[in-house]
Amino acid sequence: MRLSRYFMPILKENPKEAEIVSHRLMLRTGMIRQQSQGIYSWLPLGKRVLDKVNRIIREEQNRSGAIELSMPTLQSAELWQESGRYDAYGKEMLRIKDRQDRPMLYGPTNEEMVTDIFRSYVKSYKDLPLNLYHIQLKFRDEIRPRFGTMRSREFMMKDAYSFDLTQEGAVHSYNKMFAAYLRTFNRLGLRAIPMRADTGPIGGNLSHEFIILADTGESEVFCHKDFVNFDIPGEDTNFDDVAGLKGIFDKWTSIYAATSEMHDEAAFNAIPEVERLSARGIEVGHIFYFGTKYSEPMGAKVQGPDGKEHTVHMGSYGIGPTRLVPAIIEASHDDNGIIWPASVAPFDVVVINMKSGDQACDEACETVYAALSKAGKDVLLDDRDDRAGTKFATADLIGVPVQIIVGPRSIASGEVEVKDRKTGARETMTVEAAIKRLAG
Amino acid sequence: MRLSRYFMPILKENPKEAEIVSHRLMLRTGMIRQQSQGIYSWLPLGKRVLDKVNRIIREEQNRSGAIELSMPTLQSAELWQESGRYDAYGKEMLRIKDRQDRPMLYGPTNEEMVTDIFRSYVKSYKDLPLNLYHIQLKFRDEIRPRFGTMRSREFMMKDAYSFDLTQEGAVHSYNKMFAAYLRTFNRLGLRAIPMRADTGPIGGNLSHEFIILADTGESEVFCHKDFVNFDIPGEDTNFDDVAGLKGIFDKWTSIYAATSEMHDEAAFNAIPEVERLSARGIEVGHIFYFGTKYSEPMGAKVQGPDGKEHTVHMGSYGIGPTRLVPAIIEASHDDNGIIWPASVAPFDVVVINMKSGDQACDEACETVYAALSKAGKDVLLDDRDDRAGTKFATADLIGVPVQIIVGPRSIASGEVEVKDRKTGARETMTVEAAIKRLAG
Repeated sequence: MRLSRYFMPILKENPKEAEIVSHRLMLRTGMIRQQSQGIYSWLPLGKRVLDKVNRIIREEQNRSGAIELSMPTLQSAELWQESGRYDAYGKEMLRIKDRQDRPMLYGPTNEEMVTDIFRSYVKSYKDLPLNLYHIQLKFRDEIRPRFGTMRSREFMMKDAYSFDLTQEGAVHSYNKMFAAYLRTFNRLGLRAIPMRADTGPIGGNLSHEFIILADTGESEVFCHKDFVNFDIPGEDTNFDDVAGLKGIFDKWTSIYAATSEMHDEAAFNAIPEVERLSARGIEVGHIFYFGTKYSEPMGAKVQGPDGKEHTVHMGSYGIGPTRLVPAIIEASHDDNGIIWPASVAPFDVVVINMKSGDQACDEACETVYAALSKAGKDVLLDDRDDRAGTKFATADLIGVPVQIIVGPRSIASGEVEVKDRKTGARETMTVEAAIKRLAG
Repeated sequence: MRLSRYFMPILKENPKEAEIVSHRLMLRTGMIRQQSQGIYSWLPLGKRVLDKVNRIIREEQNRSGAIELSMPTLQSAELWQESGRYDAYGKEMLRIKDRQDRPMLYGPTNEEMVTDIFRSYVKSYKDLPLNLYHIQLKFRDEIRPRFGTMRSREFMMKDAYSFDLTQEGAVHSYNKMFAAYLRTFNRLGLRAIPMRADTGPIGGNLSHEFIILADTGESEVFCHKDFVNFDIPGEDTNFDDVAGLKGIFDKWTSIYAATSEMHDEAAFNAIPEVERLSARGIEVGHIFYFGTKYSEPMGAKVQGPDGKEHTVHMGSYGIGPTRLVPAIIEASHDDNGIIWPASVAPFDVVVINMKSGDQACDEACETVYAALSKAGKDVLLDDRDDRAGTKFATADLIGVPVQIIVGPRSIASGEVEVKDRKTGARETMTVEAAIKRLAG
């Protein structure tokens, strides 16, 4: 992408309304724009990051055996009356009447709808286990939306729903998502710690929140320091291996971790003081096993091997991509701007032309741009007619992992500078060497 | 994907509520499910096709220089009051009040919002031309939604918006989209004919609908038969070439084509009778140039090279992916089911195990499945414990372009049958030859 033809509206000033660093940086880099209170557009730079986050989420859901579909945003109130949540859900549910005066709502979550889909088609235990997920917009009419897309009203959620014949099966489905989440957050460059959690309006009796530690987190969390060194399940994880997944779950729940709601002061104090970690955290995922809470009232049953009807056991599993993007920024930035993990960076490389219009600089930039694009890299070429200093600042601000700096002096000897955004390390090398280094 | 682990709820009976073949086939193959009137879930098979359609749309938008962002579904009424459309738009607009009693709406289109984004950031002609697009859900509260996702209330739209300093620039932007649309529909396996159209509630004075011919089309259309042989702009089309794109536009508008609203009986009758085509059509895209209709009331201006402020010229360009899927089916099916063009087929190949449980069949199927998956193909393996006849019917019904049939008799001599879904042609060959043929 040539920056001269891109739409990346960098703000010169720090936006006053932003209280936390991720919100400030997302506004400054032109990643998002608020359209109404708690409702955002994702501008092109933000959209790129969001797409990459969603791709990783999707790959790990698929790897675990979950199957993607897409449910609509608007739901009929009837479904929610069946589960009893229509009246129970408070003002966060956006209630709508259509032109026929039928009561509708903008889905805040999809347990009812997916249970309706399940009961319409699945009749036998032979079709289980089943895990259906989608990545779809949701709406929760928060009284105080804040922190940009960290807590917005219209937001994106990956929500998966598992169906099993028995509780044991459902626990295995839970463990699949548990392992998939560990892998997902790790690939996003985050260390997320699963913490036993309250089940809230979703209900049920087994639940974990995945929390990343950040000073701006909304919740206070308490855990053992050893989490930092735990191994992440590998790419070769066998999601059908019941004992193996239980081993992963047991390991990751073997030491203390709790949000303030579930905090047990005595248990925490039993940990040697140097191993205690008390911090603030951001919830980036939440998983639930809730048995027959929805399948029972909604009649989601299958015929078992015994020929009898069994109400299925369900769980639900959420990740918020539009919250993950700012969470990643909270975890990875410095005074100059964002530092993207390579897996979600909007571009892999930015080529900085220090002197647009200078023939040697222009040619070298075009060579690098063409070669790396051909190699399948996402390359941003800063070909704007602007001062080199402005370009350096932009590159640092938007946090692309590698910068290739092409200046008139060094290009005279066929050389460019390659800068690592995270460490600041710079290396001078030939154009060819730079291409070879980054095309790999 | 192993069918035994997939969620593809095939219906045995033809659904009674479906009036047209695409609706019937989408329900029968378990591609979609109606959740409320005119509101659909895209089940896994349907989601796969929709994703492939969107990928092609996106690639062609990007190729033409349009830039992707994502605007939200809910909009504030204020924006629409600025343009004057809040009162003008009828009951198709779904009006909502949030918990603070603020008037909102579920966006039926995005001219206002994108103009607001534009005016907030773009101040100079140097940043033009600009074309911003997104692929997002829309809602239009149709009084009579019908034909499945062909005319639903919640639907997906790719909508692009161009901004130019002058009318000439805007016409070039229009021609870019014109060419991009020809390429897009062609890649989707459709022959779409651009027809001069009424501008309706979007407004403006230059507009074309892209229509594909199908017996179930809602509109009557009239055109010259020569359209069938016109060349589609190639992959190497230079979208910056003003004269070149005008040439494409001129060529494709040089002969008669009109919807019934714009039909000129006399002009049509001037065409020799054998060259006249009068048929029914499905609108799959609609493009508009509307000058300053939105930029004027909303104050979207840039500084020109003359130092003065100029109100920008705009156009908008829509394609409905959730309508395109049934449109493709209308154009490509037979009595046995859907016949997907390869570019949007949910799977590239289906491997049919005629006798699941037979060791030789199972092994050959696994070999083919693994080899083609490794080659990057989307492979469906029908490993269900079911009769061969059922599997053949399923494969034909869901319309995967190529079937590899593995039966106990032929596999004894190391051979499988490769069947082309469209022509029905069958060829017997070794397992290795089949892999080689299809991995390419």
